[in-house]
Amino acid sequence: MSPFKHPPLGIPVDSAKRWTENYQLATQESGRLFLMAGDQKVEHLNDDFVGGHVAADDADPEHLFRIASAAPVGCFAAQMGLISHYGMDYPEVPYLLKLNSKTHLVKTAQRDPASLQWQSMAQVHDFVRHSGLKIVGVGYTIYPGSLYEPEMLSEAARIIQDAHAMGLLAVIWAYPRGQAVGNKEQDPHMIAGASGLVACLGADFAKVNPPLDAQGNMDARLLGEAVAAAGRTQVICAGGSETDSETFLERLHAQIHIGGTQGCATGRNVHQRSQPDATRFCQAIHALVVKNQSVEEAVKFLGDNH
Amino acid sequence: MSPFKHPPLGIPVDSAKRWTENYQLATQESGRLFLMAGDQKVEHLNDDFVGGHVAADDADPEHLFRIASAAPVGCFAAQMGLISHYGMDYPEVPYLLKLNSKTHLVKTAQRDPASLQWQSMAQVHDFVRHSGLKIVGVGYTIYPGSLYEPEMLSEAARIIQDAHAMGLLAVIWAYPRGQAVGNKEQDPHMIAGASGLVACLGADFAKVNPPLDAQGNMDARLLGEAVAAAGRTQVICAGGSETDSETFLERLHAQIHIGGTQGCATGRNVHQRSQPDATRFCQAIHALVVKNQSVEEAVKFLGDNH
Amino acid sequence: MSPFKHPPLGIPVDSAKRWTENYQLATQESGRLFLMAGDQKVEHLNDDFVGGHVAADDADPEHLFRIASAAPVGCFAAQMGLISHYGMDYPEVPYLLKLNSKTHLVKTAQRDPASLQWQSMAQVHDFVRHSGLKIVGVGYTIYPGSLYEPEMLSEAARIIQDAHAMGLLAVIWAYPRGQAVGNKEQDPHMIAGASGLVACLGADFAKVNPPLDAQGNMDARLLGEAVAAAGRTQVICAGGSETDSETFLERLHAQIHIGGTQGCATGRNVHQRSQPDATRFCQAIHALVVKNQSVEEAVKFLGDNH
Amino acid sequence: MSPFKHPPLGIPVDSAKRWTENYQLATQESGRLFLMAGDQKVEHLNDDFVGGHVAADDADPEHLFRIASAAPVGCFAAQMGLISHYGMDYPEVPYLLKLNSKTHLVKTAQRDPASLQWQSMAQVHDFVRHSGLKIVGVGYTIYPGSLYEPEMLSEAARIIQDAHAMGLLAVIWAYPRGQAVGNKEQDPHMIAGASGLVACLGADFAKVNPPLDAQGNMDARLLGEAVAAAGRTQVICAGGSETDSETFLERLHAQIHIGGTQGCATGRNVHQRSQPDATRFCQAIHALVVKNQSVEEAVKFLGDNH
Amino acid sequence: MSPFKHPPLGIPVDSAKRWTENYQLATQESGRLFLMAGDQKVEHLNDDFVGGHVAADDADPEHLFRIASAAPVGCFAAQMGLISHYGMDYPEVPYLLKLNSKTHLVKTAQRDPASLQWQSMAQVHDFVRHSGLKIVGVGYTIYPGSLYEPEMLSEAARIIQDAHAMGLLAVIWAYPRGQAVGNKEQDPHMIAGASGLVACLGADFAKVNPPLDAQGNMDARLLGEAVAAAGRTQVICAGGSETDSETFLERLHAQIHIGGTQGCATGRNVHQRSQPDATRFCQAIHALVVKNQSVEEAVKFLGDNH
Repeated sequence: MSPFKHPPLGIPVDSAKRWTENYQLATQESGRLFLMAGDQKVEHLNDDFVGGHVAADDADPEHLFRIASAAPVGCFAAQMGLISHYGMDYPEVPYLLKLNSKTHLVKTAQRDPASLQWQSMAQVHDFVRHSGLKIVGVGYTIYPGSLYEPEMLSEAARIIQDAHAMGLLAVIWAYPRGQAVGNKEQDPHMIAGASGLVACLGADFAKVNPPLDAQGNMDARLLGEAVAAAGRTQVICAGGSETDSETFLERLHAQIHIGGTQGCATGRNVHQRSQPDATRFCQAIHALVVKNQSVEEAVKFLGDNH
Repeated sequence: MSPFKHPPLGIPVDSAKRWTENYQLATQESGRLFLMAGDQKVEHLNDDFVGGHVAADDADPEHLFRIASAAPVGCFAAQMGLISHYGMDYPEVPYLLKLNSKTHLVKTAQRDPASLQWQSMAQVHDFVRHSGLKIVGVGYTIYPGSLYEPEMLSEAARIIQDAHAMGLLAVIWAYPRGQAVGNKEQDPHMIAGASGLVACLGADFAKVNPPLDAQGNMDARLLGEAVAAAGRTQVICAGGSETDSETFLERLHAQIHIGGTQGCATGRNVHQRSQPDATRFCQAIHALVVKNQSVEEAVKFLGDNH
Repeated sequence: MSPFKHPPLGIPVDSAKRWTENYQLATQESGRLFLMAGDQKVEHLNDDFVGGHVAADDADPEHLFRIASAAPVGCFAAQMGLISHYGMDYPEVPYLLKLNSKTHLVKTAQRDPASLQWQSMAQVHDFVRHSGLKIVGVGYTIYPGSLYEPEMLSEAARIIQDAHAMGLLAVIWAYPRGQAVGNKEQDPHMIAGASGLVACLGADFAKVNPPLDAQGNMDARLLGEAVAAAGRTQVICAGGSETDSETFLERLHAQIHIGGTQGCATGRNVHQRSQPDATRFCQAIHALVVKNQSVEEAVKFLGDNH
Repeated sequence: MSPFKHPPLGIPVDSAKRWTENYQLATQESGRLFLMAGDQKVEHLNDDFVGGHVAADDADPEHLFRIASAAPVGCFAAQMGLISHYGMDYPEVPYLLKLNSKTHLVKTAQRDPASLQWQSMAQVHDFVRHSGLKIVGVGYTIYPGSLYEPEMLSEAARIIQDAHAMGLLAVIWAYPRGQAVGNKEQDPHMIAGASGLVACLGADFAKVNPPLDAQGNMDARLLGEAVAAAGRTQVICAGGSETDSETFLERLHAQIHIGGTQGCATGRNVHQRSQPDATRFCQAIHALVVKNQSVEEAVKFLGDNH
Repeated sequence: MSPFKHPPLGIPVDSAKRWTENYQLATQESGRLFLMAGDQKVEHLNDDFVGGHVAADDADPEHLFRIASAAPVGCFAAQMGLISHYGMDYPEVPYLLKLNSKTHLVKTAQRDPASLQWQSMAQVHDFVRHSGLKIVGVGYTIYPGSLYEPEMLSEAARIIQDAHAMGLLAVIWAYPRGQAVGNKEQDPHMIAGASGLVACLGADFAKVNPPLDAQGNMDARLLGEAVAAAGRTQVICAGGSETDSETFLERLHAQIHIGGTQGCATGRNVHQRSQPDATRFCQAIHALVVKNQSVEEAVKFLGDNH
């Protein structure tokens, strides 16, 4: 388990107190974060929500909220606009407001990625105040190496500082990408660089892609450099997409116990299942991440048909 | 009929109350929206207003207001500037302020589409306050896939949040377009992606083009994916342009009853008719959309010469 | 004569009162506007002010003010900076503040035209308050079809709304231009499109170039589409440059009585004359535009040497 | 001598009074301005300050302040940052804050020139208030014909208006430059255009390069068009660089008495001399510009070794 | 030792007093600055922190804080976000907030360097107020000669003025770079130009790269031009990277005593050592820079294994 974490310095005392409450809530008092990522309806448009092995439930955005409500996730990350439609019916969910998103239509080959802040922090403040929801933090994606890096780093730094001043957590999705990055997007040293960059921005969590070795294989040991570089900023990553549940959990366990990450961010692997399956899968992740149980213990939550 | 719709979360109580009143007014207490689109004088310059089969009445912008006043439309969408010239004489019309528009002069082949916010939200607020008109909401066009997508998504998100905070509805015109989109502009999966994106922006209605199959044919069944993806954001689309009235109504009925849309947005098909014809045509659409009548019942409003 | 014109909707009552006073002042209670355009010192640098047939008087910017003071113009349009140098000596002139201007150095072949707002509306407000001048309105140029159209439409819409809120008239110079427009700059349908666009921006007057037929000839009948498209926004255009005075007046009379325009905007045709000639020429235009006299009556003002 | 000059219109009464005091101070009650230009440490980096015939004194920026303090200059123009380092030791100098500057590293062949405002006008206001220095005005460079002309004209117009509202003079450095200007940078008609443009921006002084004839020769008579075009905006220019002192003074005398300029802006010709020489040279310029003396009288100040 | 330094002019009296306190603190009452640079986790990502000769300690960002705490550095420069994570445990360190940073992924060959301000000055103000840390100043990097020079000079000028108004020191990292600079990045005359530019921006310290002669060799005498050009702005530079300790100290001594610099900025040469070695190395630098001791005296701090 991670040790008690200080609130960030440089904010009013009452904000620090609220930050700590939000940190405890989001990490379920474990110091580890199980973030359910639900921003793909913009990032990938409808590609992740229909077709192939995707459960029919997933065609409806409410599916995301049903899972987040029924399952023991630390927080559910989605755009503020989507939450404004469903939050009234799922007030028990801890939410993280994803403040920027772009579609995947413009590929890196056409132009380096650019994603700008949607709502202003004043609007975030009003939303927190008026919604009555458990808003634990905000999220923002940066693309280090993109030609638009300067604009995104500037927005990220200001969002993080403002979020902290409101007592909210700040999570940065950090994906090196662009012509200058080429095929090094998941290079372990590149991921470590991105993680250290997020630490310098002042975020509480860095969400990174799992590093791959020269042959393109995942190996939790490759995470060590990134976790070290991030310092007190906690690193979370996903186990990859579309793997069978047990492999997913084994990888996640390795990421935490070998790689040193402090949680996970899971999207498609959760919401592409039917609600009952998704809930069971989240219980397994929760057991592993939050309750620090073994893969064997976690797998028991999956039931027979995993 | 659609069920009662919640006001968006995260706004003051009195704004939520005003939002509900505006929603009831715009949907004529039906939960379905008959939006009369009148922003083409910028979007298409004068192309839609003169020549060919276009009624002579249409050369004068007041024609739009005369129709909106005489016919049972849910709201009439136009630029605030145009409304500032005619609104005093048509105070009974429910208006929707279209906040961005561009001309069609610069084609996508020359540059990806870009359309920026015209009036500030503070100016919208003052206009609502001083005009005494029934302003039910605001509209804004986004072009997912354009190189200017980031700027437009950011403006859209802020406009929607501010509109809700004023108790106004937010309608997003969502047209995938740009070099990255190519000839997929009306692909059903693309339209579904755009609809889901609008839901994440937090809009109340997504105005999309009707999806086409691989052969370029319209089929209301293709709308299902979009309507599902939009969730609690209601999808409206048009029946296409320049079709005969009965075909138009049949398509619209199918969009609603097969496709699951909750209204329609009609522009040229209305205002290119003489005022009496346009009024009758709007009565037919109203019967179908708002009063949930059959095509046969709706057609009766058209009189003999349709 | 044009009927009484409503002040724009959506502004405070006292602003509407001031707007009406300014409208009456600028149109000399005729509903028609004789705008003396004096923004060429930026738009054309010194090209219009020296050489060839240009009167020697015109080399000095004060020439513009002397004419505007001595002649019965409805308003004199110039940049606020220029007015700040001379206004104290010509307080009787009704001024229109031209808020953007660019030089003609960068041609369309090099880059599409872009012209940005100079003074902020807060500065305009202070200038109106402290100058004690009769500021009747503001002007702004847009280039529909330029790649910079979005920025200019946004600035124009905000300027118009703020001007109205201060009780000032708003005049838009609308010149379709850019690679996308090509040689259609004075196409009648294009001019009509621009006029309708100005109406949607909410301006009181649209200043357009006179439309030309396929052979490049002027014909007042070609204005009909534009005047209709502009609706309650009044269209004014010039009679062309460097024509003899009588031809100018005949063309202007046709623009008004055949084309339906409600005034004129004249620059070079006025200020390139000596002061006495310019004054007489303005008296002729005034007779025709404001007093609704015939060409024959107007010509009498020119004296013998026209 | 120039007649008494009105303060610009449209500012509060007390600002007009301060403006007049600053005008009298800067022109040493002569109506002519001897501006010592000291912004080259950015514009030309260190090129003007070392090497060749440049006096060793000039390597130290304090040299500029020593000259400005000892010599009878009307104002010393430099960046606010530089003044913040030395002003406390040279409080008797009238300063002009140069608000934008760029290096000469990026040549026009690579990209058209762009120079943006450094300090905000609020910062200027605070500096004037807290420094206790005699700040008489502000300066700003525009490059008409550059692709970045729109941004610079907008900044210039706002700076001038704000400066006047604080009672400060506004001086515009106007250098036509860019691909569209080509080799016409010092064409007399082009310089006249730039001068008229500055008048429309509302500046008090236009600093331009001396016009050259078709053979590239300086001739004071070529200034006439520019001086006329500028109207009440006073034109100043330099006598060229690196000429012998007497030729410099003859050229300056001709600029004033033949060309009609009302002062001069001198940089390198002053500060590249040793302090004693620079002081003597400034006394000669002062005699000629401010005291309206002849070249013969002015030359006497130079001593034997000029 | 440098003489007492004036606070910058143009700020409130109490700010000048705080500035002086911060100057004394940062220079350890010596007038010379030993700046420990710790912004490389963004500027170079993780390249400087792992591999080769780099001490294993350096993989953890806290290593930087441990050194800054244990060693007699004048100030430790890092991004505000990183300081917000560790400052509470190292309150005795004098911090300098580095306000912009970019990664090295986009090379100059791909695009000229651009680095934008991260936190706003209002956020800096709040951080200073709430953190309780000894924040002595701010830092910002400019790239003269880059196509993005105008934006960076504008941000720098505003940051410096605001910093001074808060009583904070301002340090500018000035690195000529871009297509226009080519291989002249460390040319002595170019470095002098950059130093003079920083003086005009108003910064207190200019951090420059050491100039190289035509053969690419370092020579402290080459610094003379830059130190002179900077005037009252104090120049600091590094001794180069990856040299042995004694050579480093000899170069630094020459920079100060021959070149005339007033301190040093050292990053990799410090933090790539183990904590004990880094501390000893800092003690040696401190002896040389702050206590004005000889190289021989300074070397004694290194112990046996340097």
